Amino acid sequence: MGFTIAEKIIKAHLVEGEMVKGTQIALKIDQTLTQDATGTMAYLQLEALGVDQVKTEKSVAYIDHNTLQSGFMNADDHKYIGSVAKKHGIYFSRPGNGICHQVHLERFGKPGKTLIGSDSHTPTGGGIGMFACGAGGFDVAVAMAGGAYHINMPKMVRINLTGSLKPWVSAKDIILKVLQMLTVKGGVGKVIEYGGEGVASLSVPERATITNMGAELGATTSIFPSDDATRAFLKAQGREEDWVELKADDDAVYDETYEINLDELVPMVACPHSPDNVKSVDEVGKIKVDQVCIGSCTNSSLSDMMKVAAILKGKKVHPDVSLAIAPGSKQVLTMLAKDGLLADMIDAGARILESACGPCIGMGQSPNSKGVSLRTFNRNFLGRSGTADGQIYLLSPEVAAYSAINGVLSNPTELGNMPEFEMPEEFLINDNMVEPPAAPEDADKVEVIKGPNIKPFPVADPLEETISAPAVLKVEDNITTDHIMPAGSKILPYRSNIPHLSQYCFEVCDPEFPARAKAAGKGIIVGGSNYGQGSSREHAALVPLYLGIKAVVTKSFARIHEANLINTGILPLTFVNEADYDKINQGDELELPNVKEAVAEGKQIVLVNKTNGAEIPVNCNLGGRNKEIILAGGLLNYLKKHML
Amino acid sequence: MGFTIAEKIIKAHLVEGEMVKGTQIALKIDQTLTQDATGTMAYLQLEALGVDQVKTEKSVAYIDHNTLQSGFMNADDHKYIGSVAKKHGIYFSRPGNGICHQVHLERFGKPGKTLIGSDSHTPTGGGIGMFACGAGGFDVAVAMAGGAYHINMPKMVRINLTGSLKPWVSAKDIILKVLQMLTVKGGVGKVIEYGGEGVASLSVPERATITNMGAELGATTSIFPSDDATRAFLKAQGREEDWVELKADDDAVYDETYEINLDELVPMVACPHSPDNVKSVDEVGKIKVDQVCIGSCTNSSLSDMMKVAAILKGKKVHPDVSLAIAPGSKQVLTMLAKDGLLADMIDAGARILESACGPCIGMGQSPNSKGVSLRTFNRNFLGRSGTADGQIYLLSPEVAAYSAINGVLSNPTELGNMPEFEMPEEFLINDNMVEPPAAPEDADKVEVIKGPNIKPFPVADPLEETISAPAVLKVEDNITTDHIMPAGSKILPYRSNIPHLSQYCFEVCDPEFPARAKAAGKGIIVGGSNYGQGSSREHAALVPLYLGIKAVVTKSFARIHEANLINTGILPLTFVNEADYDKINQGDELELPNVKEAVAEGKQIVLVNKTNGAEIPVNCNLGGRNKEIILAGGLLNYLKKHML
Repeated sequence: MGFTIAEKIIKAHLVEGEMVKGTQIALKIDQTLTQDATGTMAYLQLEALGVDQVKTEKSVAYIDHNTLQSGFMNADDHKYIGSVAKKHGIYFSRPGNGICHQVHLERFGKPGKTLIGSDSHTPTGGGIGMFACGAGGFDVAVAMAGGAYHINMPKMVRINLTGSLKPWVSAKDIILKVLQMLTVKGGVGKVIEYGGEGVASLSVPERATITNMGAELGATTSIFPSDDATRAFLKAQGREEDWVELKADDDAVYDETYEINLDELVPMVACPHSPDNVKSVDEVGKIKVDQVCIGSCTNSSLSDMMKVAAILKGKKVHPDVSLAIAPGSKQVLTMLAKDGLLADMIDAGARILESACGPCIGMGQSPNSKGVSLRTFNRNFLGRSGTADGQIYLLSPEVAAYSAINGVLSNPTELGNMPEFEMPEEFLINDNMVEPPAAPEDADKVEVIKGPNIKPFPVADPLEETISAPAVLKVEDNITTDHIMPAGSKILPYRSNIPHLSQYCFEVCDPEFPARAKAAGKGIIVGGSNYGQGSSREHAALVPLYLGIKAVVTKSFARIHEANLINTGILPLTFVNEADYDKINQGDELELPNVKEAVAEGKQIVLVNKTNGAEIPVNCNLGGRNKEIILAGGLLNYLKKHML
Repeated sequence: MGFTIAEKIIKAHLVEGEMVKGTQIALKIDQTLTQDATGTMAYLQLEALGVDQVKTEKSVAYIDHNTLQSGFMNADDHKYIGSVAKKHGIYFSRPGNGICHQVHLERFGKPGKTLIGSDSHTPTGGGIGMFACGAGGFDVAVAMAGGAYHINMPKMVRINLTGSLKPWVSAKDIILKVLQMLTVKGGVGKVIEYGGEGVASLSVPERATITNMGAELGATTSIFPSDDATRAFLKAQGREEDWVELKADDDAVYDETYEINLDELVPMVACPHSPDNVKSVDEVGKIKVDQVCIGSCTNSSLSDMMKVAAILKGKKVHPDVSLAIAPGSKQVLTMLAKDGLLADMIDAGARILESACGPCIGMGQSPNSKGVSLRTFNRNFLGRSGTADGQIYLLSPEVAAYSAINGVLSNPTELGNMPEFEMPEEFLINDNMVEPPAAPEDADKVEVIKGPNIKPFPVADPLEETISAPAVLKVEDNITTDHIMPAGSKILPYRSNIPHLSQYCFEVCDPEFPARAKAAGKGIIVGGSNYGQGSSREHAALVPLYLGIKAVVTKSFARIHEANLINTGILPLTFVNEADYDKINQGDELELPNVKEAVAEGKQIVLVNKTNGAEIPVNCNLGGRNKEIILAGGLLNYLKKHML
């Protein structure tokens, strides 16, 4: 029996477990990345682990989230991350160098390698044939320290691409189509692997758009083969030696297979307020547009920007539209500036933003009240734009640019023939915004700079024998980590300060929650299905821990968030019978009698609702190591016992 | 007896009063400008005046302050200003088109014309030979409505420039030298006029740097002759027909005259925390630098950027320095992008920000804790950067760029010979980001869009017979409008919402002030000398009005703020004997018995301190119209009686 691409990489990196689907495995990690909104915590955790020099082949710390710098906190974070990186053998990508996933693809990613990153869009690396997963910051810290990365062996999904894209239809339309087919829960516990004759026609940046937004499927990761197109991209980046061929065996076995005929694909759009609320542009029709934003880790490559520039050249942005463009990296921005393409954009009336995540994470460019904003980004959760009643649509750069001119949502295939957009033979390479770490022998001379907003992270106690606590919060299905720990321009700058952040926990659902949880002293959260989808932010676990949360009971969890709960020392439980969700009301007094024994011995856990007498069986899906972590009171306590 | 340049323009625009220094005159206003942080109020006031179409030759509404858009408020402001401009005959410069003063100089300013703008740096227009004053928004609204602008006839100061600047010494060093000589109070009640053989060697953008930062002298305005250099600039902007010659008569009489020998000038720097705390770069020495910011209405012209690009080309920004560059306008940015100069900046490691005010007004790029930030801006007031303990130095683009490479404050004259930086024969002209207004006959079809953050402005009651109120606040000398109504990224976005802003009034001096003032119901503020210096923001009067302030008693006022108090209906008083400042403590019960009668009849006003019994004579420097405004309870009430 042959192997899929993902299975081949897993096999080559397996350090614990068997490749049996659904069981826990541990992988050696070759590369890590962090961004600054999760990075400070990850490096505080790395420092807590007491490791002098990272053990990975390459670890890179990026600054791309908090680049507006509204207040001293973020420049302090940048100084901290820059100095801690220099000391511990980590490369430091300075603010202005670009979005982590775009830069990593350009300069560091290698086919066949494993990568974890403290950002949910780390699967972007799958575009170049990496096995690349989003992870909590602590998992990234452990990987830097030489520890393995633990996941459940995923199922394998194959998406066969046939035909080729019509002019002005693009990679974004492919992933929007996949989201329409599979939904935001469709990828949970699975790797999405792309194959078929249609793959050859897609460049690495196009593939990366698809694997990037595969995060919205809830997938463990997404991956493309490493082929001639991969080799051409790496060669153009001056890194041909990093290329290896990677393809699925002809007799590889997939759990599910889907077909997409690229010939038939049309421009698509994800409507408010979910990335899987997908329709064709024509179905949605010519709605009036207030704002267009182009960029983000999904669609900020040079080839995306070349198409945008071609559409804008000699035209004028519609008077009622604000068009903002943020090229994805210093490399992209410099090349656009050298080639005159940036001038074409500006001349048409585009607003050029710094190469960073920016409006995608609500850092600036919030649309007007009830404003319709077309964005080439990957998420359109309610309120994420910073405007509570903003109407956010996700779509391709081609649709975005063409609509910006017309003032209404527009189908770019109306433009007819498309010029050839050739990837350059050589990208412009100047890595002067990436600071290499100090030589190990000089590391002790590096002073780590820790500003006053950088506070210690909370650490849990070992699991109690019995947990007695009220249901301090009950929420619905599809709660995102943006609900649990909002981002946006007001809150995101404080990511290094858990006590401050705690005031905003679940603000979107219930602004009274933080005060109530603090008053209760300890609490249990009750959730629906797919709880914790979205961003990988560990803060969605650390902040509830700080607020006294001992357990979260849901219909189901999103993968990264469940791992973050475990690492933090909060017990993740799921209802045996989903209908039991209705047997708990917010405020009910709950008890998990003898839960420590039940976890330790793998017995059935029963949740007792002392308010109404209901006895509710719940599952605790903890493989061997996870069980030990929960019993110890989180990963740091576990590692102190077992590793350090 | 001959006339100065300013006197010639005043003479040509005088509609009331005599040109007797210190007496009130009224001027016909040819042009107005607003920016968005003061513009919403100005246009609400224009709407309150009930004027259909503006009566000026050209009025332009710029968006340059709130461009980060952290929250819906700012996009709503942009929509409001864009729509109200369209309806009432005002040109609308869209966000992204650049900083008001830079764009106005490029595209609209005309020698010999009068301009008022709701921004204190409106004197930038003096670089092209305009009589250009910063003013409160209400004064700008009145000018748009066809009303005159009332000021005291200023004294005339002449600064003779001899010699020519050495390589890498620049216009910024001239104005820093002037600030060192005259201090931040030195220009109050005066026009600063530049003359002498040295003038010819300065281009319009260089002159504009000098007149711009003349605002920091407290001057009514600053002005240069309109000569061949002015003509060349206008010609390169495709506007040669706008040129007229303007020069002082040989026998013009000046109240004060100063000499600056440009040959002897060296690179200068204004040290924390005042623009007049000026030393030479060499005196300050090679202090370590954390951040460098280049741009702002003072130093963001194409020629500034050309010099910066030349210094950065092929170099690398120091690893410990974050260098941010914001070119001043779409024109500048496009030309830099076309010429490859922007690519040189990015390649060296510069972060490119949108063409807007940005970090100068604390909108982003706050430095790290205790960080040393070198900025080409015009103000370094304590906390204005958004970092309370940030150390802000003001200096030229040349010093900034060279220091960014070296990581320490550096003297660019070390670079030796300087290449010729020629102004282009033709600037690149594309005004597609300036929306013209609707034709008057279509104006009633334009819907004004008013988002939920845009709240009505408060209106005062007619002056009371006797004011009895506590001294709710006592502050020191040199209180800026940034103290009274802070800006920065947290507060500035709410400029259209006086009730919200009121929570932050005097936050820097005393965070308890708003609550105390509200509790008191009415109050009097006691201040030192030069009270209300800095920005022209009318909010520094409107917000105290909202908080119940009836009068402000100081040693002296800054010009624009005093006018704003009058327009708002708050009584501005000055101590006859400055030492009486010590006879009032915060919290004392004060009374102004029969103040209405005293104001109306020009009698001596006596302030009674009921707490300690002191009787304090105070002046009320109100010319005819100002007296009527105060009696009526502010400009709107006055105009309702007299104009509407």
